[in-house]
Amino acid sequence: MGARGPAGPVDKGLEHVVMGESRITLVEGETGGLSYRGYSIEELVRHASYEAVVHLLLRGAPPSPSELHDLEAGLRAHRTLPPEAAAVLASVPRGLPPLEALRTLISSLGDGRTFGYPPTIDEGIALVAQVPVLLAGYVRRNQGLEPLEPPADIGHVALYLYLLTGRRPDPAQVRALESYFILLADHGMNASTFALRVVLSTQSDLLSGATAALAALKGPLHGGAPSKVSDMLDSVGAAENAERWVAAALARKERLMGFGHRAYKTEDPRARVLKQVARACAAPERLRLAEAVEAAAVAALERSKPGLRLYTNVEFYGAVVLEAAGLPRELFTPTFAVARTAGWAAHALEQAADNRLIRPEVAYLGDPPGRPWPAGAARTA
Amino acid sequence: MGARGPAGPVDKGLEHVVMGESRITLVEGETGGLSYRGYSIEELVRHASYEAVVHLLLRGAPPSPSELHDLEAGLRAHRTLPPEAAAVLASVPRGLPPLEALRTLISSLGDGRTFGYPPTIDEGIALVAQVPVLLAGYVRRNQGLEPLEPPADIGHVALYLYLLTGRRPDPAQVRALESYFILLADHGMNASTFALRVVLSTQSDLLSGATAALAALKGPLHGGAPSKVSDMLDSVGAAENAERWVAAALARKERLMGFGHRAYKTEDPRARVLKQVARACAAPERLRLAEAVEAAAVAALERSKPGLRLYTNVEFYGAVVLEAAGLPRELFTPTFAVARTAGWAAHALEQAADNRLIRPEVAYLGDPPGRPWPAGAARTA
Repeated sequence: MGARGPAGPVDKGLEHVVMGESRITLVEGETGGLSYRGYSIEELVRHASYEAVVHLLLRGAPPSPSELHDLEAGLRAHRTLPPEAAAVLASVPRGLPPLEALRTLISSLGDGRTFGYPPTIDEGIALVAQVPVLLAGYVRRNQGLEPLEPPADIGHVALYLYLLTGRRPDPAQVRALESYFILLADHGMNASTFALRVVLSTQSDLLSGATAALAALKGPLHGGAPSKVSDMLDSVGAAENAERWVAAALARKERLMGFGHRAYKTEDPRARVLKQVARACAAPERLRLAEAVEAAAVAALERSKPGLRLYTNVEFYGAVVLEAAGLPRELFTPTFAVARTAGWAAHALEQAADNRLIRPEVAYLGDPPGRPWPAGAARTA
Repeated sequence: MGARGPAGPVDKGLEHVVMGESRITLVEGETGGLSYRGYSIEELVRHASYEAVVHLLLRGAPPSPSELHDLEAGLRAHRTLPPEAAAVLASVPRGLPPLEALRTLISSLGDGRTFGYPPTIDEGIALVAQVPVLLAGYVRRNQGLEPLEPPADIGHVALYLYLLTGRRPDPAQVRALESYFILLADHGMNASTFALRVVLSTQSDLLSGATAALAALKGPLHGGAPSKVSDMLDSVGAAENAERWVAAALARKERLMGFGHRAYKTEDPRARVLKQVARACAAPERLRLAEAVEAAAVAALERSKPGLRLYTNVEFYGAVVLEAAGLPRELFTPTFAVARTAGWAAHALEQAADNRLIRPEVAYLGDPPGRPWPAGAARTA
C-alpha cells in the first residue's frame, strides 16, 4: 500500500512504533531487566527447567507438578517424528548450512494437515519437540551417519546433545545449555518473532511462521553472528593480549563482536547471567581470556565512545557457554533457534488470539503516475 | 522489545504507520489507481511484456531494446537449474501442497553461496527465472512425471504453461496469463512483501526473504483464497441463479469471495483490467456467470452495507482468467507467487539499498516482574 508522499513521519526501523500489546515478555531496556510472564530470567535460571519455561510461555503461568508432567509427556510424544517427517529428513540434500537445512525441513513439514489456523498449544509443543530432532538428524546425516532414536528417559536439553553426539551428555554441560535455552527462549518483538507475527497475521500457520522466523534469524543483524565471538577470542589468543588486540582492532575501525544491543541502555541481563553460567562450566583458560577481552573492550569503548555504555550482549558469553556445552560454531545460531521455538510458539498463539492483518503504509517518493510507455520498449508479439 | 504499558498509540495492523519510503509502486486507494515506477498497470498491460515489467521493477526504468534483450537472456540463462537445484527438486517429498513445496524448494536453494547480502539484480533475475521452473517441476513430479527441459525460444509466461503441460500453449492463453502476471507483479507494502523486507532488514538474503514471503502468502487474508472464487462460481452454477444465491449466502452471514480490499475505497484497478482480460479469453458461459454474480453481489452488498463500496477485488476476475489459462485451482496461489517474484526482488533491492533493522515496539500488558517461582514448579534434577 502506498500513500503519495509521506503520510506521516517515516520510521524505517519501526523503532518508535507500538505494533501491539503483549503479555509474554517484558524487556526493561533502561535498567537491564528481562522477565517472562512476570518471572525474571534470574529466577527462572535458578529454579525452573526449560520444559517449565515452555509451559510458562505457552500457557501464561508456571506449571503445577501434574501440568509439568503433561508438558513433558507431550514433548516426548512429539519427539518421534511422524513417518512423513522422517522421510523428509532422509531426502533433504546434504551440504546445506544447518540453519537453512532446518528452515527447509520445517517448511517441508507444512503438509496442510498437521498445522492449521489458528495455531494450538499442542502444535507449539510439537514445534518445540521436533526442531532439535530435525536439526540433530540433519547434522548426523550430513556427517554420513544415521539419525539417532530419541530415548524416552531424557530431558529436552539433554536430548538435543544426545542426538548430536550419541552420548549421554555430562550433567554440567546440560545444566549450562539449559540456562542458555531458558535465557534465549523469548525476547519480545525481535525481528524473527515479528516476521512470524506478520506471517500469522495472514492466517497462515505456525510452521509457516517458524519458517519465516528462521529466514530472519539468519541475518547477522539478528541471530547470525554468535560464532564470530569465538573466532575473535581465538584471534586474541590469550588474556595477556586482550588490551593490545582490542586497541589495534578499534584503530583499524573493526567492530568488536558481542557488544551492544539496541534494546538495552545498560548491561544485557542475559549476558550477566551467562557470565555466571560460563564461570561454572567454561575451561579456566577460555574464561580468563573472555573476561580479559570483556574488560579491555568495555574500557576501550568507554574511552572511544563515552556515554554509549556498550557492554557485552547475549552473544558474547553465549558463545563461551555454547563452546563449553561442546557445540561446534556452525551450530551456534541453529541452537539459538532451537531455544527460541518456545517464544515463537507463544507469539503465534498470542497473535492469533486477537489477530489483525499486519500491513503498514509506505510513503511513495517515486515518479508520478501517468507516464506513457516508450515505443522502443513496446511488446512486439 | 517491550515497553511497560503502551508507550504510544497501539496500531495492531500498522495500518497508519509509514514504515519507509519506496519508489516502486504507487497504490491510489481513493481513486483506484496502480502504477509501477510511474507507469499505470493499464499502460503496461497494453504495451509491455512481463519481461519488460521485470526490468522496470528491478532497474527503475523501462528497458531499451538492448536492455530488454539482456534481461530476456538473463532469464533464459537461469532457466536451467544448477545441478544442486535439480537434485533438490528430485529429492523433495511428493504430496506437499504446491505452495509449501515451492517454499521448501526455495528455502533449500539457500546454500549460503549463491545468494548473499546485499542482494543483486542478477539474483533477482535468477529468482524470477527459477521459481516457475521449480514449481512446474514439482507439479510434474507429483504427477509421477519427469520435469521438462525449458526450451530456449519461448517467453517467460509461455514457459510456465509449457513446463506444466508439455504443450506449446495457445497464444491467447499466454496473453491472458501475461496480463495477470503484469497486474500481480507488485502491490507495494502487502504482507508478503513486508515479511520479506523484515527478513532482509537483518541482512539476510533474497532466498530467505522469498521463503518468508511465501509463508505469508499462504494465509487466506493475503494470497491463500483465490480458488474459493471458482468454488463459489461452481456453487452458483448458472447466471440465472446469481441473485437468489447471493441473497441466500448473505442471509446465512457467509462471506462472498472476491470482494473488497483494505487498500481500495473504490474498484480495485486490477479487477477492472482483469475483467477486460476475462472478456477476451473466458468461455462465454463462465463469463456470463461471473458477471451475473458480480452484479448481484455488488447490488446486494450496497443494500446490506451501504457506503462500504465493496467491489470485486483482484481475486474475483483473477480466478476467471486463471481458469481460462488452463490452470487448476490448487495452482492459483502458487501462480500469484510466480508473478509476484518480480516485486519481491525489487523490494529486497530497495530494502538493502538503505537498510535499517525493522524491529517495532510492543506494549507489555502482562504480569508485573518480580514474581517468585512457585516451589511446586521447581526443577528437581
